[in-house]
This record gives sequence, C-alpha cells and structure tokens, in this order.
Amino acid sequence: MSVETPETGVLDAGAKAAVLAEALPYIRRFWGKVVVVKYGGNAIEDPQGLTLFAQDIVLMRSVGMRPVVVHGGGPQIGELMTRLGKVAEFRDGLRVTDAETLDIARMVLVGKVNRDIVGAVNVHGPLAVGLSGEDAGLILVSARDPELGFVGEVQAVNPTIVERLLAQELIPVVATIGSDEAGQAYNVNADAVAGAVAAALKAEKLVYLTNVEGVRRERDDPASLISTTSTEELEELLTEGRVAEGMIPKVVSCVRAVRAGVGHAHVLDGRVPHALLLEVFTHEGVGTMVSR
Amino acid sequence: MSVETPETGVLDAGAKAAVLAEALPYIRRFWGKVVVVKYGGNAIEDPQGLTLFAQDIVLMRSVGMRPVVVHGGGPQIGELMTRLGKVAEFRDGLRVTDAETLDIARMVLVGKVNRDIVGAVNVHGPLAVGLSGEDAGLILVSARDPELGFVGEVQAVNPTIVERLLAQELIPVVATIGSDEAGQAYNVNADAVAGAVAAALKAEKLVYLTNVEGVRRERDDPASLISTTSTEELEELLTEGRVAEGMIPKVVSCVRAVRAGVGHAHVLDGRVPHALLLEVFTHEGVGTMVSR
Amino acid sequence: MSVETPETGVLDAGAKAAVLAEALPYIRRFWGKVVVVKYGGNAIEDPQGLTLFAQDIVLMRSVGMRPVVVHGGGPQIGELMTRLGKVAEFRDGLRVTDAETLDIARMVLVGKVNRDIVGAVNVHGPLAVGLSGEDAGLILVSARDPELGFVGEVQAVNPTIVERLLAQELIPVVATIGSDEAGQAYNVNADAVAGAVAAALKAEKLVYLTNVEGVRRERDDPASLISTTSTEELEELLTEGRVAEGMIPKVVSCVRAVRAGVGHAHVLDGRVPHALLLEVFTHEGVGTMVSR
Amino acid sequence: MSVETPETGVLDAGAKAAVLAEALPYIRRFWGKVVVVKYGGNAIEDPQGLTLFAQDIVLMRSVGMRPVVVHGGGPQIGELMTRLGKVAEFRDGLRVTDAETLDIARMVLVGKVNRDIVGAVNVHGPLAVGLSGEDAGLILVSARDPELGFVGEVQAVNPTIVERLLAQELIPVVATIGSDEAGQAYNVNADAVAGAVAAALKAEKLVYLTNVEGVRRERDDPASLISTTSTEELEELLTEGRVAEGMIPKVVSCVRAVRAGVGHAHVLDGRVPHALLLEVFTHEGVGTMVSR
Amino acid sequence: MSVETPETGVLDAGAKAAVLAEALPYIRRFWGKVVVVKYGGNAIEDPQGLTLFAQDIVLMRSVGMRPVVVHGGGPQIGELMTRLGKVAEFRDGLRVTDAETLDIARMVLVGKVNRDIVGAVNVHGPLAVGLSGEDAGLILVSARDPELGFVGEVQAVNPTIVERLLAQELIPVVATIGSDEAGQAYNVNADAVAGAVAAALKAEKLVYLTNVEGVRRERDDPASLISTTSTEELEELLTEGRVAEGMIPKVVSCVRAVRAGVGHAHVLDGRVPHALLLEVFTHEGVGTMVSR
Amino acid sequence: MSVETPETGVLDAGAKAAVLAEALPYIRRFWGKVVVVKYGGNAIEDPQGLTLFAQDIVLMRSVGMRPVVVHGGGPQIGELMTRLGKVAEFRDGLRVTDAETLDIARMVLVGKVNRDIVGAVNVHGPLAVGLSGEDAGLILVSARDPELGFVGEVQAVNPTIVERLLAQELIPVVATIGSDEAGQAYNVNADAVAGAVAAALKAEKLVYLTNVEGVRRERDDPASLISTTSTEELEELLTEGRVAEGMIPKVVSCVRAVRAGVGHAHVLDGRVPHALLLEVFTHEGVGTMVSR
Repeated sequence: MSVETPETGVLDAGAKAAVLAEALPYIRRFWGKVVVVKYGGNAIEDPQGLTLFAQDIVLMRSVGMRPVVVHGGGPQIGELMTRLGKVAEFRDGLRVTDAETLDIARMVLVGKVNRDIVGAVNVHGPLAVGLSGEDAGLILVSARDPELGFVGEVQAVNPTIVERLLAQELIPVVATIGSDEAGQAYNVNADAVAGAVAAALKAEKLVYLTNVEGVRRERDDPASLISTTSTEELEELLTEGRVAEGMIPKVVSCVRAVRAGVGHAHVLDGRVPHALLLEVFTHEGVGTMVSR
Repeated sequence: MSVETPETGVLDAGAKAAVLAEALPYIRRFWGKVVVVKYGGNAIEDPQGLTLFAQDIVLMRSVGMRPVVVHGGGPQIGELMTRLGKVAEFRDGLRVTDAETLDIARMVLVGKVNRDIVGAVNVHGPLAVGLSGEDAGLILVSARDPELGFVGEVQAVNPTIVERLLAQELIPVVATIGSDEAGQAYNVNADAVAGAVAAALKAEKLVYLTNVEGVRRERDDPASLISTTSTEELEELLTEGRVAEGMIPKVVSCVRAVRAGVGHAHVLDGRVPHALLLEVFTHEGVGTMVSR
Repeated sequence: MSVETPETGVLDAGAKAAVLAEALPYIRRFWGKVVVVKYGGNAIEDPQGLTLFAQDIVLMRSVGMRPVVVHGGGPQIGELMTRLGKVAEFRDGLRVTDAETLDIARMVLVGKVNRDIVGAVNVHGPLAVGLSGEDAGLILVSARDPELGFVGEVQAVNPTIVERLLAQELIPVVATIGSDEAGQAYNVNADAVAGAVAAALKAEKLVYLTNVEGVRRERDDPASLISTTSTEELEELLTEGRVAEGMIPKVVSCVRAVRAGVGHAHVLDGRVPHALLLEVFTHEGVGTMVSR
Repeated sequence: MSVETPETGVLDAGAKAAVLAEALPYIRRFWGKVVVVKYGGNAIEDPQGLTLFAQDIVLMRSVGMRPVVVHGGGPQIGELMTRLGKVAEFRDGLRVTDAETLDIARMVLVGKVNRDIVGAVNVHGPLAVGLSGEDAGLILVSARDPELGFVGEVQAVNPTIVERLLAQELIPVVATIGSDEAGQAYNVNADAVAGAVAAALKAEKLVYLTNVEGVRRERDDPASLISTTSTEELEELLTEGRVAEGMIPKVVSCVRAVRAGVGHAHVLDGRVPHALLLEVFTHEGVGTMVSR
Repeated sequence: MSVETPETGVLDAGAKAAVLAEALPYIRRFWGKVVVVKYGGNAIEDPQGLTLFAQDIVLMRSVGMRPVVVHGGGPQIGELMTRLGKVAEFRDGLRVTDAETLDIARMVLVGKVNRDIVGAVNVHGPLAVGLSGEDAGLILVSARDPELGFVGEVQAVNPTIVERLLAQELIPVVATIGSDEAGQAYNVNADAVAGAVAAALKAEKLVYLTNVEGVRRERDDPASLISTTSTEELEELLTEGRVAEGMIPKVVSCVRAVRAGVGHAHVLDGRVPHALLLEVFTHEGVGTMVSR
Repeated sequence: MSVETPETGVLDAGAKAAVLAEALPYIRRFWGKVVVVKYGGNAIEDPQGLTLFAQDIVLMRSVGMRPVVVHGGGPQIGELMTRLGKVAEFRDGLRVTDAETLDIARMVLVGKVNRDIVGAVNVHGPLAVGLSGEDAGLILVSARDPELGFVGEVQAVNPTIVERLLAQELIPVVATIGSDEAGQAYNVNADAVAGAVAAALKAEKLVYLTNVEGVRRERDDPASLISTTSTEELEELLTEGRVAEGMIPKVVSCVRAVRAGVGHAHVLDGRVPHALLLEVFTHEGVGTMVSR
C-alpha cells in the first residue's frame, strides 16, 4: 500500500503494540458484523478524503467486519443539471424529479459517484461491487407525492443480493435509486435508504459520515454536541424542532434503525481523517452515538 | 405477463404442442450452459425491441440456460456529449476519450443503458444485476494508445463475480467500462469485451445481436449472406478485406472466442422479433453461425 | 430426437416464437414444482401414445419441473392371468387377489408395465428409475378386506426415496404394489396411490391421464363436461351418484389430494397427443381442473 | 428381531465377547467398503436361506459396509415359461430369447425374484431398493449373437444410480436385465453382471453365493477344493478345461473383476448358514478366495 | 490385531455366526448414538483391563456408536502426592485442594491417566484425542466450598468441542479438570462430570465401569443386586440411606442424567472382561440398568 | 479486556489511526495463514509475559490468522524431577529418559505447561485446545538412540487433528510428546517438533520466541545480530560452528522448514512485550528472519 503514514515513524515499538492491543477487543466484538456506512455527496468531492475512507472500509473488512456503503450525490446531480441547462426545482427541500431529471440523477449516482467509490476501494484489490437499488429488487419504493415526480419513498428492502455479496466477502456499494413494482425507477433519499438497508440487514452499526461534528442539543450551539444519546431523547429533540434541517433525515433514520434492531447508530464527522477507524477500533469517541 | 401474443391465437393445439416438442432437444442440450449475448447500442433505442429481448433472455434462463448480457452504447454517449456541447473526436474509428469524455461514457453506459436493460428484465422479477467491468476486477484493461486517451484494450477477464451471480441464477448485465491495474477506468469496445467474457466463461454460445442480417461473403452483396462458417473462412475474409467495417470487431471476436473454447459464435439480426429464441430453440437458422 | 414433427414445418418463424413466448410464464411458474402423473393401463397399450407421453414427461423435466409417474396395469394383469388359465374373480369391482394372483400382478406391474414406461423415457437418456411401492418403505398398506385377499388400502406414504431421486433430477416411475408392516406385498388401486403420493410430496399438480374427455356433470351427457370445478362441487356430484363408476376413484382422489395441499388436480384426455404439454404450457384448457 | 438364535443360549458370556472381539478388526477393515454379492436363482427358492441371507446383508450394512445384491433367476424363468406353455430353447448353454421370452424373463426377474429379495431385506426396515439394469442407464449391453435373440453382453456399467443409493445408506438389489443404446431390453448373465458392477464400483469384495463348496482344482475331486488362489492359477485352470461348466462364468468374472481393481473375489457355499458373515467377520475361511 | 482370543478357537462356525447375528439388532439400534463411559481410577491400574477396555471402545466406534470416555484418577493423585511428601487432607470425603495439590491433580489426570487411556486406544489407530475440561470451555465450574480450595462443582457443560471430535469420528477422552469464568482450574468429581457430559450430549447411554457388581437394594447384601430400576426407586434408596458411600455420586448422577434426557444409565462390573460389549451387544444383562 | 494499556493514553487520535492503518496491509496479507509459534519453557515462567503472549495469539486469530502454539518445558521437568529426588542425566545435551522420567516429562508438559498456556488463552474465550503429540497420531517418532531411552526423533507429522481444530477457528496448543508405531510415548525436542509441524501445515510463518535477540553471525558478538538471512547463509554458519549451542536446533529447524515450503522462519526476542504483534503487523523488524 503506497499510502504515506509519516506520523507513525515517531512512535516507538511499545506505543505501536499498545494501539494494536487496544484494538483487539473491538476486533473480536465486531467480527462478522455488518456495518452500513452512509457516505455523503459532499465528502466524495474531496479525493484525499475518499482515499482515506476507502482505506478504512478495506481495513474493516480485513478484520472480519462486513461493511456496506450507501451513498447519495446531490451536489453532483445539481452540477450535471446545470451543465445541461436544466433548472432544479425544489419543494419542501425535495428535488422535483421529472423523467429527464431522473435520467440525469441515475447517470450521476450509478454511473459516476458509485463508480468513483468502487474505484477507490478497488485500488486495494477486487473487493467492491457497485449496486443500484434497482438490482435484483433491492430497494422497492412508491411515489412520495405525484407533484414531486419520480421521488420515491422506501417501501421495502430485499437485502438478498447484498447478503450474497457479503457472504462472498465483497463490499457492496449502493447507489440510492429504487424501483416500484412496475419496474419504474425513482430517486430516493440516501439517508433513508441507509437506515432501511441497515434495518433489513440487522446491522450492528449504522454510520452517517457527515461534514459536521455530530448532533447538537441546540442547533446553533457547538458546545451542545451530544456524545451518546437514546432514541427517546432524539425524538424529543425532533419534536421540539431543535435538530438542524440537514440533520433531520439522519436523525429520523437513526431512530428508526435502532428501533428496528440495529445495534448502534452513529453520526460522525467525516472530515476527521480515519474517523471510522477511530470510532470502531479505539476507546476514542467521535461524534454522536445512538443506542436503545 | 401482459405481452400481447396475438399470432398464437390462430394456431391449433396440435401445432402448439409440436413447437414445444420441437424445442425439447434444444432445451436439454443447453441446460446449464452459459450464453453471452452482446446487445448493441442501436437496438436499445427501440423500446419494443428491448421488451422482446428481455423476454427472450428471461425465457432462456427459465429453461435452465445461463445468459449474460454485454452491452455498449455509442449512440447514447454521443447524444449526451452533444447536449453537453462537447465535440466528439475520432481516430481510426475510435473515440478519443479524455477524462471528461470518459466520465460521460461511464455515466451513460453504467448509469443509463445498463439500467434500462436491467429494468426491462426485472419487469419479470428480481433477476438482473447490473455490473460495470470495474466491479470486483471483472475487466482488466491497458491503454490502447496514448493518443486516444482512456480507450482500453482488454488484457484479462476475471469472471468470478459473473460466475457467482450465475450460480445464484441471476442475470448479469455488463457495461463495458474496464479498469487498469491502478484502478483507472477506461472505455472499451463492447464487441471485444463480449468475446473475452465468453472465452473466460467457456461459454457455450457467443451471440451478437446486430441490425444487419449476418456476415456476408461480399460486403455489398446481400445474397452472399453466410449461414454457417468456420474460423478459417472468417480469417480469410478478414485478410482479404471483405468484411464490412462495423462488422470487423464482431468477426474478430467470434474467431478468437471460438478458438478459446466457446462452442459457437453467432451474428444475428436483432431486428427479427425473438431472434434469440428462434436461433436457440428451433430448427430455424437465423444469421451467421461460426464453428471450429 | 427422431420423432416426426411434420406440423411445425408449415409454421413461420414468428408463430413458433410466439408459442415459445407463450410458454414462458408457465415455465417460470412451475420451475422446481412436483407433478404427479397417473398413467393408465389402457394408455400403455398404445405404443405411439407411450412415445408421446414419454416425450412430454422429459420435456417437463427439461424445463425444471419434477415429474413423478404412477401407473397401474389392470388389462395387462388380466391378460397374463388368462394365459396362465387363472380365472379372475371380482367383488364390488375389486379383483380378489390370492397369493398367486398377487405374484402375477406384481410381475406384470413391476416387471412389465413399469419397465415399458421406464424404457420409453430412457430413450431420451438415463433419466427414469423404476420403483415398486415396496422399495424403501414407499407405500405402506393394510388389507382392505380379508375376503379380497392381498388387496391393500394405502395407510401412509413415505416419500423419502422419491424425493431423493427427484433431488438427483431423475424421474421416478412407481408401480402400485405396497407392503404392510410385516413386509407382505399387496396390490393397490393406482388412482388412490397417485393421489396419496401427490399429497405426501405436496405436489403442485396431480394429473390423471384417462381415455375420456374429463369429468361430466351428468355421467351420460358429453355436453356436461366440466372445465374447472371445486372440491365442494365434486363431493356433491359424488353424493348424488352422478360420477361414472370408473371415474369415482379418480374424483375421490382429486378431492383428497387438493384438500391435503396439492395445488391443482386434473383429469385429462390422454388420447389427445401431447395433452400434458398443452395443459401445462399453454392457455389451452384440456379436460377438468380441480381447485380448492 | 424375531429370528430364532437358539445356539447362542449355551454360550457363556466370555465366549460371546470373544466372538465379538474377533470381529472387531474385520469390521474396521471393511468400514465403508462396497461388497457386491451375487445371489443365485437356486438359493432364492429356499425361504429359510433367503431369511438368513437378508439378515447377513443387513448386518453388513449395520457395521458400515455397503452391500450390493445382484441376482439372476434361471429356474424361476423356466418355471413360468413352462406354465405359459413355452418351450425353452438353449444354444451352448444360453437361453434363446425371443421377445416373448424376454418379457417373461423380465417379469420374473424384476417383478418376482427382485421383489422377493427386496421384501426379505425390508423386513428389517426400509433399506432395500430394487433396480433393473435398465434404470438410469445402469447396464448397457449389446446383442451377443443374433441367433440368440435378446441375450445381451455387458458393454458398460454406469454405476451412478447404485452409488447414489449407497450414499443414502440404501441397499441396491439389481435384476440382471440390461438395455442397449436404443433402449431395447436384453437378458444378461447374472454372474457377468455381478463382476462388471463390482469392477465399476471398485468394490472391496465380489462374492458369489453358490450351491457348491467352492472352486476345485480337479472338477470331480471334492478334496481338491481351493482355499486361496490367484488370477494366474484360475486362468490356467480355465485353459486346461478343469473348471466345471456352471462355474466357468463365475471364475471368468472373478478373474476379470480382480484384474479391474476389485480387492478380492470369493466363491462361497451359500448352503452354509450365515456363510457371508463367517467369511467377512471371522478367521474362518469358507470356500475359495481369489486375490491378485 | 495381536490380541489373543483363544476362547473362540473352540467355537464352531455356527455358534460364531449366531453370536454375530444376535448382535445385529443392537448394532442397528445404537448406530450413531453417543455413549458416555466413566472409567475409574482403580480400573486404570490394571494394564490387561485397560487393553480390553480400549478394545471395547474401539469396537463400539467401529459399529457406528460414538463413545466418549470420562475418567478420574484418585489413586494416582494420591500416589504422586505421597512421593512429593505432601499429606492429603479430606473433609467429608472430598480432598482439600490447595494450589499445589491442584497442580499435582492436573498433572496426574491430564498428563498421565488421560495419556494412558489415549495411548491404549490409539494402539488401534489414530482414534483418541485427550481433552481436559478446560479445553474450549468444556466444563464450567464454581468453587464448591472455600474451605475445600480448588474443588469445583459443575455449573455447565459446553459440549461443542466434544461434538466436533465425535463428528470427525474421533474418540474424546476427558480428564475431569474444569475451569471457572476467570479461567481458574479446579478438580471436579469424575462421576458428576460423566453425568453432566452425558446430559449435555443427550447421550443414549451413560455407563459407570466400577469394581463392584452393581447397585444393591441393601448395601451389605450381595443377593440384593438390582438388575433394572427406575429413577424413583433409586431416589428412595438414596433417601433411606441404603446406597453404599462410594456408590452415592454414581447413583445421584444416574438419576440426574436420565431425568435430563439420557436414554439409560448403567453401573457395570468393570472387572468382567468385555463387560461393555456384553451389555451393549448381547441379551446378557450385566450390572444395574436405570430407566425413566 | 482488563489488561492495562497506559501508554496509548498519551497518543493522539491521529497517531492511533496511523498505527491501525499501518497494520492494514499486513492483516490482509496474512488472512487465513497458519503461523506456528514455538513458546519456550523459560518464557512460561514469567506470568506477565504469558499474559501478553496469550493476548498476541488471540489478536492474530481475531484478524483471521490461524496460530498454532508448540511448547516444551525443560526447566519445569527438571524441577519436578528434583522434587521427586530423581537425578537428571544428560548425554550430548539430551536428557536420558527412562520410563519414570518419561512419565514425569509427560505429566509436566501435558498436565502443567500445556494447561497453563491453554488457560492463559482461554481467559479471552473458549478458544484454545490442548493437544499432546500422541493425540490422533499427530507426531510419529522413533527412538533416537537406545542409550537415551525414550527420547524420540520426529519421523512424520499427521496434521489432520490440528487442521480440523484450525478449521473450527480454535487455537491448538501442542505439547511435544510423540508416540511410535506401537503407541509408546517419547519425549521430543520442541524446536524440532515446531519446525516439523510448520512444514506439515505448509505454514506461512514459523516463529521461535526465545530469550535472546536473534541469531548472530558471531556467537559472542551482540553487534553481529542478523536481521534477515537465507537458508544458505545459515547452513554456512552451522558448518563453520558459529551458531550458539542452544540456538542450533532452532536454526536447523528454520532451514528445514523454509526448504519444506514454510514462507518465512523467525527467531524473535520473546522478552520484548508484544514481540509477535510488532513482527507481524508493523514495519518494525524484530529479531532474525529466514527466507528462501
């Protein structure tokens, strides 16, 4: 692996051994466990971040975990629409998706973002396989609202194809296009898909990699960052309108997933290098953890 | 199945039974056999044709065959480039592919054409899974010529992921993007990929669905259509320059695949409804068949 | 396959493709499903009919179905008895079966009729295996009536040996001799055995191939042929004595089998060539179908 | 088990334990080994002998061996022919077999003798399954001599069905009817079939249960009984014409089978109660043993 | 096998065959069944007895049974303690076990007695594998009484490692050292361990090989030997104090094991040669049998 | 895990992540690979060292490696002999081993040292299983020299039992007692056994944990420590007598094992905490590595 790791040079052997030994109980606890990681469209823009993220995912697999990556790609869709001279229209924060917009979204998510992630992982070997939610009936959706066009709401997840790839020690990377019973494709919110996939897989962990530090008790007070919380407390925050807008679908999905049997849900700061590794393999707490 | 099949109404029961009985020995001969079908970008434009093609592929699987679909999408790539105001440049019939063109090609092949085929098949059930040649190291390529940019030449095919999906009775649909050892993506000629995949899978059949009647002995003489031929004869035709330009990569791939152990290669007229069914399950000969 | 199929010669390619496409949804629906076919002693006498029957059975297996053949052989038993100068005695339509008659019945069913069917199927490959109900405890019976001698009534079916042969993609052909707990052999009514075997296998279909057109609402009115019916209606017909004598065990067995979980039971006219194929793979209805 | 075993009553516990302990090394040596036993038509006539034979076969299976029974039935065929008023014709000791004679032979072998053996074994549980050499392509034959009619010569043995039944811990009982490539049935010499089946299965032992004491060095001198011999010595005896006529096919088959890889071949006196047990599980030698 | 078996020499073939035939139904009944045999420390001192015991265990395995040996070694522990100048201290019949005594007990049980039994069995082939109750969490114990030191009481048996060895047709030989949750080793009563292991394995039989004839109704009356009994009767005897002291843990364990699902429990006289064989494979009754 | 890891407290998150990332390629390279570790009798005396060693072994298994521990116990044997008043006798550095000495050696190795290692590992879960080389025919030896008594030389290793335990993800811990063909036990040199076991398993690595820094080029010059070397160089050093006496069997075994197909052999300084981890998972080199 050609990745530079200059910091370790200054560590003495004893310190290194101590870090490895610290990781031991976590490695044992998570062996064979499924971890669903939502990787955001913003994060993908940063090539260095993508490289580190891919490294973390491969390391998790190497110690016996079974990671699944779910991603969106809002900024990238917007960019192509602009280049094609198409004006994005939003209602209540949701993109109105006509047939052409859907085609563009699908091309970007499945044909670009998904590919970039698969490619970054496969630098380490033939490990990742890209999936669209349309493959083998993975994500079944229905139209959310006729006025929004092809914007889907998750109805059911058929995780068979994902489970098969995991059983073959491959890393599924899922683009969040779904299809309805008639085979029509829809764009779906990636946060919601990640939660539903984690629930369907009875995952050990559901991790949202974001560009904030975590969930706050007061949306504008950085000092109110929540380290660990419960589904009850989160529901209260939602009811009281204290959750920042962009965080709402994540928080809602965390609550649902944990209630549906997922072990823990996490909102991490993806800007911290190797945030996934630190969360999973060290005593270090990063971001917000949701438990039952 | 809602597909209209009005012609059969007029057949009496005896005639129907006779057709089914005629298919019996073919069904038995091809049980469990792999058939790689190259579906062309032109064909995909015709929705009715795509519907019938999907039906044929599903029928083949239903009687125990293991079809693999490989597709390109030249016209569709061209169309998006035009819309993005990008001028296509060709050298010796090959598209010069800079990074942006590659991105466009990948979006179109993986994010649109592949999806359309997967969707048409999955109307019949959760059967198809889209793949890019980048997934799990499927298609390894090298740059064909620095001047052409990201145009790849097939170096090796690692068919493991395809074999696994086949073992699970799924239908792999392969978009012809490959990657080199460093993980860089390339556009690859779909005819060549189809042949290499068929060879790697030791397929029973390699079928090119085209928009012509088959291979001709004289490129401009429709009456010279070849019904059955050998790799030797085809090589002769190639040497003597008698093969039409668009047909050359298909003919070359047919010769290579058959030499590498594929049972038979076929060039069929995809414009004939259910051409695949007729070729595979009846005495009817359609197009050109290449044997050792 | 050397079987003549002259009729198809006149069909054009489109009509052929349409028949094959029509079969598709049926092939998919019945994949892996067990179909128990009762083949009557009368039918076996017609060599041409046996050839077509064998072809149908092999075709069903070729498209993934799992056919099981159950047969009797009344006429053939009678014939050998006559040749051996033994006078058949009947009470209430049941053959009185002393030890010698049992020996004769067993020789004819297991050693002749069963062999003829196995032989006709195995022209297509090493597919069929003959079984007697005595093998591996398949059909457990008790004496029906001491006055009738070795005439058995089905007590239980242990389908393990049949299931194992099916799992090996072989075609079991069952002669209807059973044995009691002490290992004594008995002659058993083939219609009853077919129904009990279908029930024990939770078959998708139970098919009686007879030499009449189907079940009638009025036993002497050909125009009263029933196309589809329910177990309730059939019981009513039985109670009211409207079912023709030879049809009674079939109708009783159909009712029992469907109630025990068999998908559908059919009484078909075995004199129609390829009656099985038409029933299973086309929209054509042939004979009487019983549903819950 | 209701079988009377009065002799053991007088043995003290120590003697019993000693016999069991003596059997130990043989049981270990033969665990999982295939033993093909040819059971003759003469022997079957004796019901007490059949009962003991069945017991021995079941005991062999109980200690982990995998017995296969092959049988003929010459006397029984002759008897039915007589009853049907058909005169047997022999040429060079071989029965001329027209279509009717074949039908009779098949009925007797498959429908009576085979059934009697299966029945005697299945008194101990659902263990035995009757097979004809026609089932699943088991015994492929060709006509021996046009003048003899349907008398077959073994061309090949496809032991798949036998191996599958053995793998399921069942006891195959094979009637020696074979079929040619076109599916036509033939009568075949049971001694030859037993040897060919043993060779095809790479059996550990091939055992002929006869009604003589074994092979003699001089055909008329009981004192010349051979205890152990080699294939070379047997060939010499054959060449010199010293082998009794009825013994010739057995001796020829022993030589062939041992040369083809069978461990040992035995000619035992089936009239000795439990001859099989004594041969297999004690130091006692019974009859003639052939080694390489 | 070089073991002398002189007694059988005088038996004629018929008697031998009768003994083997007598064993048949027992062999069939016990095929695949687990039998846990407690072998006492006293018995091991007699090398001839150990040889016969090993032979019996191997014979049981050879006919498909799955024997498990559990052993103690009180006399051998005492002997080494004496040699090391350590005075044994007992309270209520239980050895007070300090750390040094535990070390000695462990060395003797695991490093000597266990090895001697494994060695005696492995004369017949690589069949036995020694286990300590500490291996792979087999025997979980807690301290019985602080005053006794490292004397454990069985809390739970995790039979996985034993089941795996049995599945590989190996013979587990278990030394009765257990460990608590913290990994601390303890000495445990071997009679109790045998019963708990039999219960955890749902064994068919639990056999105590002792140096007395069996359980008596009156502890001092040899004529009151019990041949067959129930758990109820044994409890009564225990309550009434009629069971001899050394027999108490065996009787208690028999009652518990049978109540927990073990088929039968036996107390046999291990001084009778081949007592195990006689009990398991003949009509002969030896010692006391406990049923539900 | 209650082990104190105070050093890592001072590391910042980035440094920790860097160490984990550094381990990634090693984890991937060694996944599923067998590593045989020889743990010396001296090392076992240090309880803290044994705790760290057990931790390392468990960590290796947790990341997918398959460790096998082989151990001797010279000092412990000597100690018990002294306590029993037995004077050790040595010839050419080898302990003369009479029957009593063998018994003592076996008790100590199998009943004490082996148990201590198994216990230390099983603090982390039911992972380790103790084996003696006598179990299931693991180590076959012959007498080295009659004058030495029961001192064995490795003749062959039958690794089946070790492979089975590895397949069940257990950690085999092997005491170096072997047995000859007659089942007689022998004491064997643990260095030689470790090498032979590694060769038989085609291990990826053979590691000797010693109490020196590694192999030296000059036996008395600490500065001549060899970091990496070849089998050729080691043979030269042996021939020239430059290897320290205690190191000779290790060096000889390293050469043999690498020649027999083991990937690399290592002589590490077991006194360095977590020496195994540092060698296997970091760029740090510790001790001497032997390659082909």
